[in-house]
Amino acid sequence: MSLVVVGSVALDSLETPFGRRDEVLGGSASYFSTCAAFFGPVRAVAVVGDDFPAAHLEFLASRGVDVRGVARRPGRTFRWKGRYELDLNVAHTLDTQLNVFAEFRPDLPAACRDSEYVFLGNIDPDLQGQVLDQVRAPRFVGLDTMNYWITSKKGSLLRTLERVDMAFVNEAEARQLAEEPSVVRAAERILGMGPKALVVKRGEYGALLFSRGGVFAAAALPLSGVLDPTGAGDSFAGGFMGYLARTGREDEDALRRATVLGSVLASYAVEGFSLDRLRTLTAAEIRDRYAQARQLVQFPDLEDGALGDATSS
Amino acid sequence: MSLVVVGSVALDSLETPFGRRDEVLGGSASYFSTCAAFFGPVRAVAVVGDDFPAAHLEFLASRGVDVRGVARRPGRTFRWKGRYELDLNVAHTLDTQLNVFAEFRPDLPAACRDSEYVFLGNIDPDLQGQVLDQVRAPRFVGLDTMNYWITSKKGSLLRTLERVDMAFVNEAEARQLAEEPSVVRAAERILGMGPKALVVKRGEYGALLFSRGGVFAAAALPLSGVLDPTGAGDSFAGGFMGYLARTGREDEDALRRATVLGSVLASYAVEGFSLDRLRTLTAAEIRDRYAQARQLVQFPDLEDGALGDATSS
Repeated sequence: MSLVVVGSVALDSLETPFGRRDEVLGGSASYFSTCAAFFGPVRAVAVVGDDFPAAHLEFLASRGVDVRGVARRPGRTFRWKGRYELDLNVAHTLDTQLNVFAEFRPDLPAACRDSEYVFLGNIDPDLQGQVLDQVRAPRFVGLDTMNYWITSKKGSLLRTLERVDMAFVNEAEARQLAEEPSVVRAAERILGMGPKALVVKRGEYGALLFSRGGVFAAAALPLSGVLDPTGAGDSFAGGFMGYLARTGREDEDALRRATVLGSVLASYAVEGFSLDRLRTLTAAEIRDRYAQARQLVQFPDLEDGALGDATSS
Repeated sequence: MSLVVVGSVALDSLETPFGRRDEVLGGSASYFSTCAAFFGPVRAVAVVGDDFPAAHLEFLASRGVDVRGVARRPGRTFRWKGRYELDLNVAHTLDTQLNVFAEFRPDLPAACRDSEYVFLGNIDPDLQGQVLDQVRAPRFVGLDTMNYWITSKKGSLLRTLERVDMAFVNEAEARQLAEEPSVVRAAERILGMGPKALVVKRGEYGALLFSRGGVFAAAALPLSGVLDPTGAGDSFAGGFMGYLARTGREDEDALRRATVLGSVLASYAVEGFSLDRLRTLTAAEIRDRYAQARQLVQFPDLEDGALGDATSS
């Protein structure tokens, strides 16, 4: 089914312990749509400046992304500059230049307004709400957000949350949003704010899915070659939403598969700088790693007599 | 089969965001043996002072722990005082009084020397070696250690590591021991130092098992009622080694079950201060949570046609 993402398309400058890259393709909509496109067509709504290399849009289009919703505006493209420590969980933003993104007022092309699946990338929650207003009959809506919006626009965020089916947050965001240090209790509270399901992302530790079906833990594949964690969360959401949109299902099995596929896409994304690894990724590789993810967590039932008698009850 | 643990028996004073306790039962041998005793008999070798409450030894004995190897020496019992932050992963040692533990020279009672399974708790690696010297024909040896010994006695630790089948470390210890920031590569190096298998403990994120059978990820059960993380690692090792000693198996299925049982025992241990939750724990509850751990990570195969055609290969 039809899927649209609204988010950023950016030029990133990155420094990790394993190298650096200047002005490479980045942004939530880029990662999301490239990953979602493995499952079916996806429409991207974003804005770039007149300095944005045409080759990047051609790349997205070549992957099956409909880029007609990526507006080109006079001015410079959104730029983000970041540095990661040896512990790649620790990121420092060195510079953010919103440029044309500062005036981003998502205007969905007519062709996008009938989208059934909608992903609201991490932008101002008021804009997320305005995007939803433009979608005629959204069937399943996912939302990403960040600490900045939780702090500065909590009211707007709560209003948008009421309208979505699914939220994707990391552990710190879950705790902050719910004002509750226990991630389990925080997740319960967030499910009370509107979404039917919630993914709590835990970086190299995987992700937790909270839904009507209970809790599901997706272990991250242990990787030895992580180069650049940028875009992991959006790649996760892209795999997750792309799979749901393809199957049209929202049952527990589908949500669990989507969570694992999200982890798999994220695991590939971080093995290259920018979207480099995703450029050569194949469907067969996604299937391979999905199978590995099953093998990774498989264990048999406990046999009778595994425990002693002395303390049995 | 017979199992012996050598480690500490201590009086802990604890402060967590959820309360405090003074001079309660603690120590690696206490947690380990209480957890291992759910699977079968276990022998504890440790030292306490003449101030140590008899009731604690009576408790251990009542759980099936053979405490004849717990020597009582003139002087005060080992005391540890710690404080945990709201993020329970952050622990501060406020005070350590080794007392009689400073002169601990493990002397295995004759009845312990025929033990087939041996757990070397976190003590001086030279002492761990001396314990092994006293065991006539160890069949399976597990070892715990900590950053202090990796820093101050690395040579001794490496000599002891060569003699063990299994090591239990946390992520930071794995990185430090292997001098390698990637946990996956660190684990590979440690397996090159002697042990056939390695558990890397990740606290609330669970544990990774590295062995000939590859990597296994045991997700920790998401808990909302953690009170006191003290003893989690020793409880894990107790469940792990206790199960192996009961079954006499070391194949991949057995190691995976042991890893999950270790996680289950640790999950109960942290739900009470000191060993409080373990005192009332039943075999049925262990089975329940084992079943929950399976449900937590279960997900179906990917169906045909889950991925699009455009990018298939």
